[in-house]
Amino acid sequence: MATLKDVAAKSGVTVTTVSRVLNNRGYISEETRDKVYLAMKELNYQPNEIARSLSKQKSNNIGIIVPHIEHPYFARLIGYLEREAVKKNYKIILCNSHAKFEKEIDYLEMFQSHRVAGIILCSRSVDIGKFVSLNIPVVSIERPVDVGTTSVECDNYQGGILAAKHLIARGCRHLVHFSGIENEAMPADARSKGFIKVCEDNNILHKEVESKADDYLNMEYHSLIESVLKENPEVDGIFASSDLIAAQVIQVARKMNIQVPDQLKIVGFDDVSIASLVSPTITTIHQPIKEMAQEAINCLIKCTEDSVVPSRIQLPVSLIKRETT
Amino acid sequence: MATLKDVAAKSGVTVTTVSRVLNNRGYISEETRDKVYLAMKELNYQPNEIARSLSKQKSNNIGIIVPHIEHPYFARLIGYLEREAVKKNYKIILCNSHAKFEKEIDYLEMFQSHRVAGIILCSRSVDIGKFVSLNIPVVSIERPVDVGTTSVECDNYQGGILAAKHLIARGCRHLVHFSGIENEAMPADARSKGFIKVCEDNNILHKEVESKADDYLNMEYHSLIESVLKENPEVDGIFASSDLIAAQVIQVARKMNIQVPDQLKIVGFDDVSIASLVSPTITTIHQPIKEMAQEAINCLIKCTEDSVVPSRIQLPVSLIKRETT
Repeated sequence: MATLKDVAAKSGVTVTTVSRVLNNRGYISEETRDKVYLAMKELNYQPNEIARSLSKQKSNNIGIIVPHIEHPYFARLIGYLEREAVKKNYKIILCNSHAKFEKEIDYLEMFQSHRVAGIILCSRSVDIGKFVSLNIPVVSIERPVDVGTTSVECDNYQGGILAAKHLIARGCRHLVHFSGIENEAMPADARSKGFIKVCEDNNILHKEVESKADDYLNMEYHSLIESVLKENPEVDGIFASSDLIAAQVIQVARKMNIQVPDQLKIVGFDDVSIASLVSPTITTIHQPIKEMAQEAINCLIKCTEDSVVPSRIQLPVSLIKRETT
Repeated sequence: MATLKDVAAKSGVTVTTVSRVLNNRGYISEETRDKVYLAMKELNYQPNEIARSLSKQKSNNIGIIVPHIEHPYFARLIGYLEREAVKKNYKIILCNSHAKFEKEIDYLEMFQSHRVAGIILCSRSVDIGKFVSLNIPVVSIERPVDVGTTSVECDNYQGGILAAKHLIARGCRHLVHFSGIENEAMPADARSKGFIKVCEDNNILHKEVESKADDYLNMEYHSLIESVLKENPEVDGIFASSDLIAAQVIQVARKMNIQVPDQLKIVGFDDVSIASLVSPTITTIHQPIKEMAQEAINCLIKCTEDSVVPSRIQLPVSLIKRETT
């Protein structure tokens, strides 16, 4: 493999000059620059990014931790994060914590050893105090964490309000909300609060059903949904905290011969591809995932430049009306 | 941040000894090892992986290029690749080529600069000859490439045979196959061949419909499907080259008041989560995605160890019967 020295020899300049061209440092004449580039091209010279990272004590990688790569919400989020990172000349190292606290800690330590430029955390709340003190910027998405970091989220509370208001306006009087995982702080908690507030203000009967951590990891809610629908035959409206759950409500209703939307109306959350791929298509709360990814990457880069960044960014949600209501 | 020197001072041994403990090299007594580990723990010492990579001229990252992070097939594949890589102490750098040839080349060059341990290529066929010559192992998944690399794929031809046989056994006499992207070599091509072979052997009327590259990138096939169903009202069986297309066939059929499976039977491909999340659930050809990910990571690691690896690994598929047939 060609080295800096080979490039210098071929272009007839010193190694220092080649290094200056590479790092765009100091005055270099147009002519010299062209000579060096030509030599690099002819020798198929590839700068050693590892050596460059070592001299900077920092790489241009962004570490991302998600709880669940295959969940449709995270699949879409990762897609947008990668796109935004690449635009700014960063690459992503992707880690799947399977929502395990110990795996998150392992990954955070690994990111530290690899001198990542920044970390995007979409997983549980962990004590990231020590990472902040090490000057690795951390941005969390949909999981507000400690002070000293930036959190990007959608207006989950407003999402709960929009969902409940819409179901009530469509004539529902007995609502069930499939919310987050029991005993765990989730973005779904604020959705519940907004939902319950509207139900109480309108004297609407309502029930909140939490799921188990395993249901979330396995993306499997059918038996939970079936038992709730059997125990509550009067239910005429459901607010699901993800489109994934909403899709499974449609399937269980079909199995139990409950007509959607005539007998049962459903509102999901996220607005990922599955919402428009199932039949009937799912009315849902749209999360601005693309914009959230942009904000997260921008904040991270601002942090690396020591600019002042917001500690919390909340983006608005909207109701997308489709066939389940 | 604590250095190797600090650890040596604290544990009362030389820097060389600490380095030996870290790299598990040479004879070190149990007692010394414990002292060093204790000092590392107390000082919160984090080895600098960048420096280690430089001395090895290789990192423990595996570069992965997919055409489409959010496509349900790739979302699942990435999940399994990450899991297998982590088991073997590797991390993944994930890149999305959006099926653009130029982006693939950029990413491959970037991987080379970063001295990745290996590359997994799930994107288009590119001329990777120069990467092979640079001794970076390359494994392709579902996209056979040049000689000198390993390709892992499922038995796509057999998949086409199983799908056609099943539709015919269920009474279908006019089949349509939504295959890959026009003018592009895709794994779907072998599926078509198997499908057409069975139709010809059984004298069954059949038609192959290719899609546009944009349909694939946007995951949007509704208008294509609708025009095909309108122009071919006699069609009673469809073989879709992905579950994503099959889900959209269900939606279009519903809109056109065609009963599935009574009037139209559908077989998908992949067996990703969407196949069991839509109503009716989709009969599909199961790809052993988990096993394919395992084979790919294992081959890559064997390559880095200079072991002999297969040049092609083909895994069997199976038909999963669900409600669309």
